[in-house]
Amino acid sequence: MLTPRYISEQLQILQNRICTALEQADGKGKFVEDIWQRADGGGGKTRILSNGNIIEKGGVNFSEVFGKVSENMQEKLGMPAGNFFATGVSIVMHPHNPFVPIIHMNIRYFELETQNENIYWFGGGIDLTPHYIDRDDARFFHQTLKNTCDKFDYAFYPHFKHWADDYFFIKHRNETRGIGGIFFDKLQEDLKHSKQDFYDFWWAVGETFAPLYTELMHKNATKPYNERHKQWQKIRRGRYVEFNLVYDAGTKFGLESDGRIESILMSLPPEAVWLYDFQPEVGSPEAETLALLRKEIDWLSS
Amino acid sequence: MLTPRYISEQLQILQNRICTALEQADGKGKFVEDIWQRADGGGGKTRILSNGNIIEKGGVNFSEVFGKVSENMQEKLGMPAGNFFATGVSIVMHPHNPFVPIIHMNIRYFELETQNENIYWFGGGIDLTPHYIDRDDARFFHQTLKNTCDKFDYAFYPHFKHWADDYFFIKHRNETRGIGGIFFDKLQEDLKHSKQDFYDFWWAVGETFAPLYTELMHKNATKPYNERHKQWQKIRRGRYVEFNLVYDAGTKFGLESDGRIESILMSLPPEAVWLYDFQPEVGSPEAETLALLRKEIDWLSS
Repeated sequence: MLTPRYISEQLQILQNRICTALEQADGKGKFVEDIWQRADGGGGKTRILSNGNIIEKGGVNFSEVFGKVSENMQEKLGMPAGNFFATGVSIVMHPHNPFVPIIHMNIRYFELETQNENIYWFGGGIDLTPHYIDRDDARFFHQTLKNTCDKFDYAFYPHFKHWADDYFFIKHRNETRGIGGIFFDKLQEDLKHSKQDFYDFWWAVGETFAPLYTELMHKNATKPYNERHKQWQKIRRGRYVEFNLVYDAGTKFGLESDGRIESILMSLPPEAVWLYDFQPEVGSPEAETLALLRKEIDWLSS
Repeated sequence: MLTPRYISEQLQILQNRICTALEQADGKGKFVEDIWQRADGGGGKTRILSNGNIIEKGGVNFSEVFGKVSENMQEKLGMPAGNFFATGVSIVMHPHNPFVPIIHMNIRYFELETQNENIYWFGGGIDLTPHYIDRDDARFFHQTLKNTCDKFDYAFYPHFKHWADDYFFIKHRNETRGIGGIFFDKLQEDLKHSKQDFYDFWWAVGETFAPLYTELMHKNATKPYNERHKQWQKIRRGRYVEFNLVYDAGTKFGLESDGRIESILMSLPPEAVWLYDFQPEVGSPEAETLALLRKEIDWLSS
C-alpha cells in the first residue's frame, strides 16, 4: 500500500543507498548527518559531504513535513487552505574538478487535504549542469534518463525532457542552467497510469541517480585543470545561485513553509564569483559551452 | 522646474561627482563606463570600478527608463496599466579589506500616468553592511544620516531608519543585512512638504554619500586582516547575494522591466562563499557581529 508512511520509509532507504554509493565513488568524503524537526510538523535528515576527493560540497537530504497550510503558504505559494504532507529526497553535488558536472536530483511525494478533496501527486527530476559541456557525457546522461523513462511509457522522456528545459531556465540571462534532463510534477493516476505505475516510475528515477552520477565522477575526476577552468567554474556556480534563489520552486517552498534554512540552501555552491559583464573569448571552450545553454537541444543525437 | 528631464540631468551630475570622489579616495581604480539602451525606451550609463586599491568591485549606475507598463510588470510588480518614467542612481561598493564595510545607495524618481491619474514619487536610501561591526563607525554613519534628515524634518530620521530596518532584512535568516541606515519610498507632496521639499531632501541624501563613504574607506582600508577575516567576508557576501536575489525590490524591478542584466546584478559581490551551517565561535568578533544584525538597534547612543 502506497501510504505516506511507506513512501517516506522507502525514501530513507534510497537516501542511505545513495550516500553509500557516493562515499564509495568519492573514496574519501563521509556524509555528516543533521536531524532536524519542523516546529509545525515533521522534520528531516540532512546529510552533507564536504571536501571529499571529488565532491567539494554536496547534500543528500531527506525530509517529511506536514501540517496546516499556513497563511503564508497560501499567499506566497498559491496553495489552498487545508492540510498537507510532503516528503522527498533532494540532492545537489558540487565537485572540485570543473570537468565533473554539478548534478541535482529530487523526488517528492505530496498529499493535500482540503474541504473539497484529497489529492496526492508525485514529482521529481534529475538535471545536469556541466561547467564544460562534453557531448559524450551529455548523450550518456540523456540516454540513461530515456532508458529509465522508456521502461514505463515512451511518452515520458520527450515530455519530461521538454519540461526540464522550460523549468531549469535562467530567464533573465536567457540561458538554461545546464543541459537539462527530466522534470515532472503533479503526476496523478490517469486513464493510462495507476498510482502504482507512477510510484514505480518515480522510484526508478531515484534509483537511476547513483550509477549515473558515479559514472560521470569516475570518468572526469582525474582530468587536469588550471586556474582558468576553476574561475569559469565559479562563474557558472554564480549562475546556479541565481537560478536557485530567483526561480527554484523547491527553494521557494522550503523558505515559505518554514523548512530548515541550512538544509534548503545546501544546494548553493561552496564558492561563487560574479565578474562584471564577463564574456568568454570567441571560439574558447567556455564560449562553446555558453552557446549550448539553450532549450530544445536533442542531446541524444548530438 | 522639477521636470523629469531636469531631475535626470541632475542625477548624471551626481553620478559624475560621486565617481570622481570614489576614484580619488581609492587612489588607483578607475570607473569604466558602459552606455546601454533599453529596447522599449530609455537606457543608462553603468560605471564599474574593479580591483582598485580599496574597492574590489563597485558600481555607480545611472539609468532613465520609460515606456508602457508591460503585462509582465503588471503581473509581477503589481503595477497598473499606463506609462511610467523611472530615473535613478544606484551604488554598491564591495571593498577588498573585510574591515571596510559594503555600502549601498539608491535615489530614484518615478512617474506613472494611468487612465485615472498622473503621479510621481521620490524614493531612496543608504545602508551599510559591515563584515565586522565597529560601534564608532556605526554611530558616525547613523549620525551623518540623521544630520542630513534633520535639516528637513525631525520626523524623517526615525521614520526612515525604522523603514530601513524592515526593508534590509533577510527574513529566512532572521538577520538584518547590515546595520541599516535610511530607506524611503513613494514620497509625494503632502500637507507639510512640497514636491520641492522632497526633492531637496532626496538630493541631500545623494550628496551625503561620497563624504560619508570615503571617510569609512580612509579610516579602515589599512587595517591588517588575515584569511579568517577574508573567509568571514565571503560568508557575509553570500548573505548579501541572498538578500539581493530573494528580496530586493530594485533588483526585481530591473529584472521584470527588462533592464540591463549586468547593470542590475553589478550589486553582487566579486566572490561569495556558502559553508554548510557555519556557526562562528562563541565570543568571537564574528559572533559579536552576528548578534548585532537585529532590527531596532539605536546606533546613535550605542
